[in-house]
Amino acid sequence: MDRTYVEAGRGIDLAEVRGQVDGHLAVFIDSKGLAAAGHGLPGEIVEVLRDFLFAGGKRLRPLLCAAGWQAAGAGRLTNAVVGAAASLEMFHAFTLIHDDLMDESPIRRGKPTVHHTFAAVHAARPDAQRFGSSTALLLGDLALAWSDELLHGAGLDSGQLSRALAVVDGMRSEVMYGQYLDLVASGTATCDVETALKIAYLKTATYTVERPLHLGAVIAGADDAVLAGLSAYGRPLGEAFQLRDDLLGVFGEVRETGKPRLDDLRDGKHTALLALAYRRADTRQRHTLRTLVGNPALTEDEAHRIRAVLTATGAREEVERMIRVRSEQAHLALDRASFPMAATTALRRIIDTATSRTV
Amino acid sequence: MDRTYVEAGRGIDLAEVRGQVDGHLAVFIDSKGLAAAGHGLPGEIVEVLRDFLFAGGKRLRPLLCAAGWQAAGAGRLTNAVVGAAASLEMFHAFTLIHDDLMDESPIRRGKPTVHHTFAAVHAARPDAQRFGSSTALLLGDLALAWSDELLHGAGLDSGQLSRALAVVDGMRSEVMYGQYLDLVASGTATCDVETALKIAYLKTATYTVERPLHLGAVIAGADDAVLAGLSAYGRPLGEAFQLRDDLLGVFGEVRETGKPRLDDLRDGKHTALLALAYRRADTRQRHTLRTLVGNPALTEDEAHRIRAVLTATGAREEVERMIRVRSEQAHLALDRASFPMAATTALRRIIDTATSRTV
Repeated sequence: MDRTYVEAGRGIDLAEVRGQVDGHLAVFIDSKGLAAAGHGLPGEIVEVLRDFLFAGGKRLRPLLCAAGWQAAGAGRLTNAVVGAAASLEMFHAFTLIHDDLMDESPIRRGKPTVHHTFAAVHAARPDAQRFGSSTALLLGDLALAWSDELLHGAGLDSGQLSRALAVVDGMRSEVMYGQYLDLVASGTATCDVETALKIAYLKTATYTVERPLHLGAVIAGADDAVLAGLSAYGRPLGEAFQLRDDLLGVFGEVRETGKPRLDDLRDGKHTALLALAYRRADTRQRHTLRTLVGNPALTEDEAHRIRAVLTATGAREEVERMIRVRSEQAHLALDRASFPMAATTALRRIIDTATSRTV
Repeated sequence: MDRTYVEAGRGIDLAEVRGQVDGHLAVFIDSKGLAAAGHGLPGEIVEVLRDFLFAGGKRLRPLLCAAGWQAAGAGRLTNAVVGAAASLEMFHAFTLIHDDLMDESPIRRGKPTVHHTFAAVHAARPDAQRFGSSTALLLGDLALAWSDELLHGAGLDSGQLSRALAVVDGMRSEVMYGQYLDLVASGTATCDVETALKIAYLKTATYTVERPLHLGAVIAGADDAVLAGLSAYGRPLGEAFQLRDDLLGVFGEVRETGKPRLDDLRDGKHTALLALAYRRADTRQRHTLRTLVGNPALTEDEAHRIRAVLTATGAREEVERMIRVRSEQAHLALDRASFPMAATTALRRIIDTATSRTV
């Protein structure tokens, strides 16, 4: 496919968006720290949240929010859209903190997860583990409430706010339904590719990509055609992103992803990769998947045997193909949409980054 | 103290508020169930939330929201203020679901708690306990997000919405700080009455009483004098409410409270009641408190020994006195405020119900 497009306009400067969003989050967290101190409230939970937010993260959702804003024809980022973008990153912190708690993950972004951090700080308590879990639960709740507060306080006018709230309300329900389906489906290998893709749709295509794009776009006052164009781009891209994530969860390097790569296999995460392998497996391979996937004590050797099945059945290659198809669909959607050149340039670059990433 | 007040006007009809709020919640949950079915999403989480919401509950926060509305001079409840009141009840469901998870409580409102319900339904899974906890975590998250959605969708005008959001944002941070302080302080008996009262202030005085009053009042467009009057009433009432709760948590009847009364003692909940007893205890009594409070395997006989110390030290009587003092302060605040007669009548009745309740 010959796709030459002019790199006209700077598009969105990723580093600049990141800088503005991080600046906004830092000011917000500072204000919370000061308010807590002023009321004699415990400041340590604010500090743990600050550390978590700034330990890493690709800021993909804020970036897509900025791209949606630009796709709708708006110009430079305003404080209001940066605030909305920052609220997405705070919401993401909420999902990760609760996700790690549900998955009992020890590491995130190369550091101990929040429940491990609190358990370690209060190791002298007889109930340190439970205390760590409870505190991570609360900190996630606080991040969810504060993501809202960031949106309310972004300085949107009443029309922008009511449109933004509708997008965010939808996104929140979707991600939680996705998490629930994920929980129900986890544990054992099956050949149910459809459920795996539905989870990918809810947890990633809408939450990570389409809704952030729409958030920026509705704040800019986008019409239905722009929103539909962004959906046509965002859904396949989101699925591709999740499929890449599934591959990285099994074949990725710890050094790169910042999380142990046995977790997904030990949890028996229900991914398209595993479902395809199970569907294509012979009796012996199916036995390997059935007995090893979802085993919480899985060893590196056993994981190696699973990986061998994922490769031998062609599932790994098939997932790579699915990613390519979806990347092409996303590019095609941009060909058909009439977004400003700068936005199109940025959105094309995001396809490449999101689908060929190593973290 | 001779306080004769005319029972003029009907005040707020508690049953009517309850009916309107429950109707609003039922319509909202129905719409969520239909939306889930329409998108092929799992409906069972909506149903568990519905069962939880309608299994009981005093609807105290919606009632106070309605009273705040009336104190600010507004008339009959509008759909908008009923929607805001319903959002408080949904928020309360969120706090209870996560609270029960943190406390590992088996029973709430006379039924199995949400994490127990989900674990039982999925008992065939090898990870049924963890599945139950994860699902309760998600359902609480969903209730928090939906409490927001109820507020956004209540039909408030933009001025009302922005004032309402400011109240709710404050409330959410306060209750989570309160929960955190509660977690940190739980486990062992100490003589720290101040921390116990601070927890009572954050978890109950503001979250349960003052903020709901303010929410109704700001929607009605209350001025600062009305808000200050409601605070002068709400704070002592909220503390009295929490102190009554502390007594019920130790001396209440399971049949009445719907939850086992050993939980607070087993968790070592840091209450003013326990702190006062510890402060007044002699060496032998202090030993009893030190060794038994916070013991997760506490027996009914041991609980009886703790109760004997709480009574013998006079702590129980002192807490009853503190409740009376705070009730008087709340009545006095009403004498000084110039709320409409109907509102004052309702607010006086709430003092009596909230401080002399048995559940």
